[in-house]
Amino acid sequence: MIAALHAVERGRELSGLEQMRALIAGEIPPPPIAELMGFTLVSVDEGHALFRGEPGEQHLNPLGSVHGGFAATLLDSALGCAVHTTLPAGIGYTTLELSVNLVRGITPATGPVLAEGHVLHAGRRTATAEARLTAEDGGALLAHAKTTCLILR
Amino acid sequence: MIAALHAVERGRELSGLEQMRALIAGEIPPPPIAELMGFTLVSVDEGHALFRGEPGEQHLNPLGSVHGGFAATLLDSALGCAVHTTLPAGIGYTTLELSVNLVRGITPATGPVLAEGHVLHAGRRTATAEARLTAEDGGALLAHAKTTCLILR
Amino acid sequence: MIAALHAVERGRELSGLEQMRALIAGEIPPPPIAELMGFTLVSVDEGHALFRGEPGEQHLNPLGSVHGGFAATLLDSALGCAVHTTLPAGIGYTTLELSVNLVRGITPATGPVLAEGHVLHAGRRTATAEARLTAEDGGALLAHAKTTCLILR
Amino acid sequence: MIAALHAVERGRELSGLEQMRALIAGEIPPPPIAELMGFTLVSVDEGHALFRGEPGEQHLNPLGSVHGGFAATLLDSALGCAVHTTLPAGIGYTTLELSVNLVRGITPATGPVLAEGHVLHAGRRTATAEARLTAEDGGALLAHAKTTCLILR
Repeated sequence: MIAALHAVERGRELSGLEQMRALIAGEIPPPPIAELMGFTLVSVDEGHALFRGEPGEQHLNPLGSVHGGFAATLLDSALGCAVHTTLPAGIGYTTLELSVNLVRGITPATGPVLAEGHVLHAGRRTATAEARLTAEDGGALLAHAKTTCLILR
Repeated sequence: MIAALHAVERGRELSGLEQMRALIAGEIPPPPIAELMGFTLVSVDEGHALFRGEPGEQHLNPLGSVHGGFAATLLDSALGCAVHTTLPAGIGYTTLELSVNLVRGITPATGPVLAEGHVLHAGRRTATAEARLTAEDGGALLAHAKTTCLILR
Repeated sequence: MIAALHAVERGRELSGLEQMRALIAGEIPPPPIAELMGFTLVSVDEGHALFRGEPGEQHLNPLGSVHGGFAATLLDSALGCAVHTTLPAGIGYTTLELSVNLVRGITPATGPVLAEGHVLHAGRRTATAEARLTAEDGGALLAHAKTTCLILR
Repeated sequence: MIAALHAVERGRELSGLEQMRALIAGEIPPPPIAELMGFTLVSVDEGHALFRGEPGEQHLNPLGSVHGGFAATLLDSALGCAVHTTLPAGIGYTTLELSVNLVRGITPATGPVLAEGHVLHAGRRTATAEARLTAEDGGALLAHAKTTCLILR
């Protein structure tokens, strides 16, 4: 928790892109949700973010497939971080709306998945982004999403 | 995992409402995602489902607040289960689309939250539902959502 | 056009609710889109707005049914006006996101339809609302929607 | 109306792509909604559709800008037609859900706009697509959207 607070503190001095890069470099600890849900930030660039997750038994819903919340959480991360990479130090954002399409069922047999987000609109007050979730093996589209974020100046 | 498979198997002989009631009664084990994310099914009725979750340190995102995936997962559960309560034995469903509005930040200090879903349209081929996420203490609206489901006959 | 400009001008001195009431009373002319698409504002209250539209041959798409844009336009009006009723004079809003579910086909034989919007969250910076489109005759649910608005202070 | 009925009739013998091409070639009359809202189908290809519209005084809302329903109608057309191009003769579709982000205000001074839709997922039972609305002059992004369609076999 102290590490997490330091990360939040340090986040205020870095641009969004610098924060993401520090996280990938291991200089900032991964957020608790990433450990809980089993995903990691793989790469970032201005307006882009790529996450990798591993669907497992722990993500199963009562129907015996991976819960839609797994895809929603990864896509929300990719969308939010893509927006964050466009923001200078001291400027925050919050997600207002997230809309997810689940186009193929996910099971532990799907193997690792990639969530790639990119910004569509980076405005003064709001930003929007789109993201896709694909199977690392074969690249099949599993889900896609878009988001509306509020920029906190 | 064997318990989970038995639960899926047994699900085929029960209506959606009967499955949910067996889950509340402890006759069917909770799905893994509920244990992982810390939420439980509290009550169901024809077209309605109520879940309760506890946001904690394990759900924090890099910004120091609870990840939007926590709300999305609970709301998706409330929406899907509300739809499921309208289906007879042997008829399944799958979520096509989930759209979530996050209207207030959630932190561990928010305390327990309630996700209540209700069906708007129960058709032969598709169903739609709405859900709200509120703070158990005080009832403040935290998030709301709607979904589109495909009925698998 | 001059009438429309006067209406916009006058709008700055009135609260949102006062503007809507002046529109219903015929003191402010209906906006051009309402005449084009064939709908009228029927009633308003704090956080609520009700529109009535008449689907006709002019709204047909290439498939021979009423274009989804008809429902989207009415629902967007009901959502936006519901939000507007909560705003004091001098405070504007803009729609960031609109999400519509079309649950029953609409044809000219459907007869008049009612679009009813109500606010879910009225915050300082953003507001959200839900709306339903029903057949005036019989009340069948035809479509429903939700929106995210930015408040312009 | 008789022309429209013939168009619907003829549509049953043609694939979606053939129908769109016949419409562009002027062999099938434009649907009434296109005339009402002032837009035309410009080009199509497998999984793609491009529309062009002209925002005018007739589209203004009470706030003095072009109503969100204008963008929603064009985007819905681009999305639906993109999906339709993937369907053989005799197979229909219906839009279940449409989600629109409005990122820049539109006025008659914006000039002509282009709505370009492309399919993301073309499944047996459902299809999804994304679309963007841009200013013809300069290419600024005005709005974007995604949809969920049900395939009617």
